[in-house]
Amino acid sequence: MAELASRSGLTVATIKYYLREGLLPPGEAVGATRARYDDSHLRRLRLIRALTDVAGLRLEVVREVLDGIGRAGSWHEAVGSAHTRLPFPGTRPASETSLARVEAMLDRTGWSLGHGSPHAEALGRALDALDDVQHPLSDDLLDAYAEAWQPVAELEVAGVDAGDVESSAEAAVVGTLLLEPVVLAVRRIAQENVSRERGR
Amino acid sequence: MAELASRSGLTVATIKYYLREGLLPPGEAVGATRARYDDSHLRRLRLIRALTDVAGLRLEVVREVLDGIGRAGSWHEAVGSAHTRLPFPGTRPASETSLARVEAMLDRTGWSLGHGSPHAEALGRALDALDDVQHPLSDDLLDAYAEAWQPVAELEVAGVDAGDVESSAEAAVVGTLLLEPVVLAVRRIAQENVSRERGR
Repeated sequence: MAELASRSGLTVATIKYYLREGLLPPGEAVGATRARYDDSHLRRLRLIRALTDVAGLRLEVVREVLDGIGRAGSWHEAVGSAHTRLPFPGTRPASETSLARVEAMLDRTGWSLGHGSPHAEALGRALDALDDVQHPLSDDLLDAYAEAWQPVAELEVAGVDAGDVESSAEAAVVGTLLLEPVVLAVRRIAQENVSRERGR
Repeated sequence: MAELASRSGLTVATIKYYLREGLLPPGEAVGATRARYDDSHLRRLRLIRALTDVAGLRLEVVREVLDGIGRAGSWHEAVGSAHTRLPFPGTRPASETSLARVEAMLDRTGWSLGHGSPHAEALGRALDALDDVQHPLSDDLLDAYAEAWQPVAELEVAGVDAGDVESSAEAAVVGTLLLEPVVLAVRRIAQENVSRERGR
């Protein structure tokens, strides 16, 4: 337990809490008061830490995400599970107008969404928020995002196919959530460069 | 005040709180207990609401962002101000290794970053988080993000040039923060479509 703490960078008290809450599977008992932990425990602790610290998820959401990883029956399901368990912030339902714009974008790009996919709703709400502050998003920019992501998504999803289902599900969660700060940082770097070019 | 509340969707108590905190400029006094508010007040309230509800910013950060809008002297400064005032989550400094990888990526893409730009640090920390969970990001994928963003950033930054400095600064904040949920939703839609294609 002490070694697990030093290698994960978490305190013993935090690890015990995760054990009690069922976020971390119990170790193998070796005597009345000792248990043995292996690399899978360390990996799980690092994932929990990244989901809370980097992705900023609350512990209830982390639990749902981890349950999804454990339950996925196939690789495609694992990706889907990672997606549906990670709702975007905001509570107001998307407007009909914005949902219609999302549908039209899907038609133009040749994409579709499965039943129960939360993404149309999430995108619709994001469009509503821009309408609210009177900076509506143009269809041109929406289509530019879609066009930019198509080749990148191919690379991203190919990277998630890690062999066994549990590893793939974990990779899908990491790829969805922990790559988001990368994506947003690269976007700001690109903006800074374009902005400076124009500012000259 | 009552009209401002109904048109912004905020309560009178909340608006009074924003006035006291200096987030909303005072209205024009018309008598001892009445003040007149105009469209600029309504726009400011909608922006505060979007920054808290959609972008999930704490009120202290909203204040810094709004101060940056007010103080920007030029359009390029406004974009820069929007960027530097919006730190990414996480507190641990980026590792030397990851910062070197960011430098190398900038070299490959022909980009550079200004003094005081927080983006190299933010990207470095995001790369560290992926290393921690033993899913390091490949340079191929990092370069793919950079390549995908270049043309999109041109469109995004062109959209921010709104004439006067204050409007441009506001547009830069909106474009940085409120477009992020759009970007991430479109990314997930692209992933879902690629994943389903591969799952067949």
